Amino acid sequence: MPDKKPIILVTNDDDITAPGIHALVDAVKPLGTVVVVAPDRAQSGMGHAITIGVPLRLHRVNLFGNEIESYQCSGTPVDCVKLARDKILHRLPDICLSGINHGANHSINIIYSGTMSAAMEAAIEGITSIGFSTLDYRFEADFTLSKKIAYQLTKKVLEDNELKGALFNVNIPVIAENRLKGIRICRQAKAKWDEDFDERRDPHDQKYYWLTGKFKNMDDGEDTDVWALENNYVSVVPVQFDLTNYKLKKELEKRWKL
Amino acid sequence: MPDKKPIILVTNDDDITAPGIHALVDAVKPLGTVVVVAPDRAQSGMGHAITIGVPLRLHRVNLFGNEIESYQCSGTPVDCVKLARDKILHRLPDICLSGINHGANHSINIIYSGTMSAAMEAAIEGITSIGFSTLDYRFEADFTLSKKIAYQLTKKVLEDNELKGALFNVNIPVIAENRLKGIRICRQAKAKWDEDFDERRDPHDQKYYWLTGKFKNMDDGEDTDVWALENNYVSVVPVQFDLTNYKLKKELEKRWKL
Repeated sequence: MPDKKPIILVTNDDDITAPGIHALVDAVKPLGTVVVVAPDRAQSGMGHAITIGVPLRLHRVNLFGNEIESYQCSGTPVDCVKLARDKILHRLPDICLSGINHGANHSINIIYSGTMSAAMEAAIEGITSIGFSTLDYRFEADFTLSKKIAYQLTKKVLEDNELKGALFNVNIPVIAENRLKGIRICRQAKAKWDEDFDERRDPHDQKYYWLTGKFKNMDDGEDTDVWALENNYVSVVPVQFDLTNYKLKKELEKRWKL
Repeated sequence: MPDKKPIILVTNDDDITAPGIHALVDAVKPLGTVVVVAPDRAQSGMGHAITIGVPLRLHRVNLFGNEIESYQCSGTPVDCVKLARDKILHRLPDICLSGINHGANHSINIIYSGTMSAAMEAAIEGITSIGFSTLDYRFEADFTLSKKIAYQLTKKVLEDNELKGALFNVNIPVIAENRLKGIRICRQAKAKWDEDFDERRDPHDQKYYWLTGKFKNMDDGEDTDVWALENNYVSVVPVQFDLTNYKLKKELEKRWKL
């Protein structure tokens, strides 16, 4: 734990009014000084998008009680983290927490997730970060278990000096607390979405498409996040943003004559 | 090379009218049947964003000559790849090419890049993919060298049966062809952007912010993409989308009691 009270930056992708971010702030506020900078509208599926072509707005709000400084931002989750560091905190926070997302961000979903991209943006800046998601996507989701996990893991990560700059993807199953078997360190399951766009006709007889799809787990390993969640564990995947495929790099250095 | 004429899906993030995508189509059309599905407006910095909340449009266009089927899409680069597979090709293409991007996508920029996210989306589907970027961001960029590289690498990857499903990030320096020293297989350089939002006041005296920043290379390795480009090489980074930090996973499995 840092000597001074840690500064905890909280953001999400469901928007600043979502129950999940309020549950997260409530869970971790005993651990430090919480500052919230989160999107003013839903930004799910925004991945690591940043706003280049239009200017951004940042408005002070009072949505988390008088003791917690909070701002809503017109940009993406990644924009929120960038603005928080540059214009609000004027220093690096001790940890960045993103979520609690309404819906799963395990396996390949990390790539599309605004929740995880916000946490990753902080990690790129050198800030220790955790993204939290519950598998319950509903507005009415029960965050009791998720709050306990968020508190426990945030405390553990803050207290572990060797984890500075580390990044974690935490998913929480939808089960009663007494059925939870524990917390598992996992790898990202190999999975994808089989897209099936819903094709419709507008009143002018022009086609339009809605994205729909089926999740396909292609990984039968028992050390994956999908396995952990299906077996009543909380999954914790340590995440990196060096995307180099070192195995293929080594192979091609030998095999290709360039 | 596949027995039949390969199907080459081409997309980008600068939009379907950008000179870079026309240079790419022109360069690779001798290698197979090209189908273009690209955004109808600039989508730079969109990362791996997908469109969830609004429906998508797809319009047949004729921007690449009568022999090349082409479509513009109202969505992100990732949406383009998803729609192309589901609604246009009705099968997996043999390769997906994205670009040629106007501007660098080396090092950490891969995370923010719509160009690379489109290629990654194809790779998630199991499609061999290459993202191409020239370091010249201008509309008037000279694509002579980039076209030669795009042709050469696409041919090489198509002919290499062991590379099915592989993903590459290719960046091309802005130099005269006779100064090019070669093509290097690299790793992603450790780098970040130091944000510095430009703070302004609108006519109603309300603040707004424009994203600006300075690129900071924190990596002095000579096997990185940034080093290669600074030393007059084309950089080729083999890329993966398993973001698990296996080193930290192993360490925490030993160290954490959960």
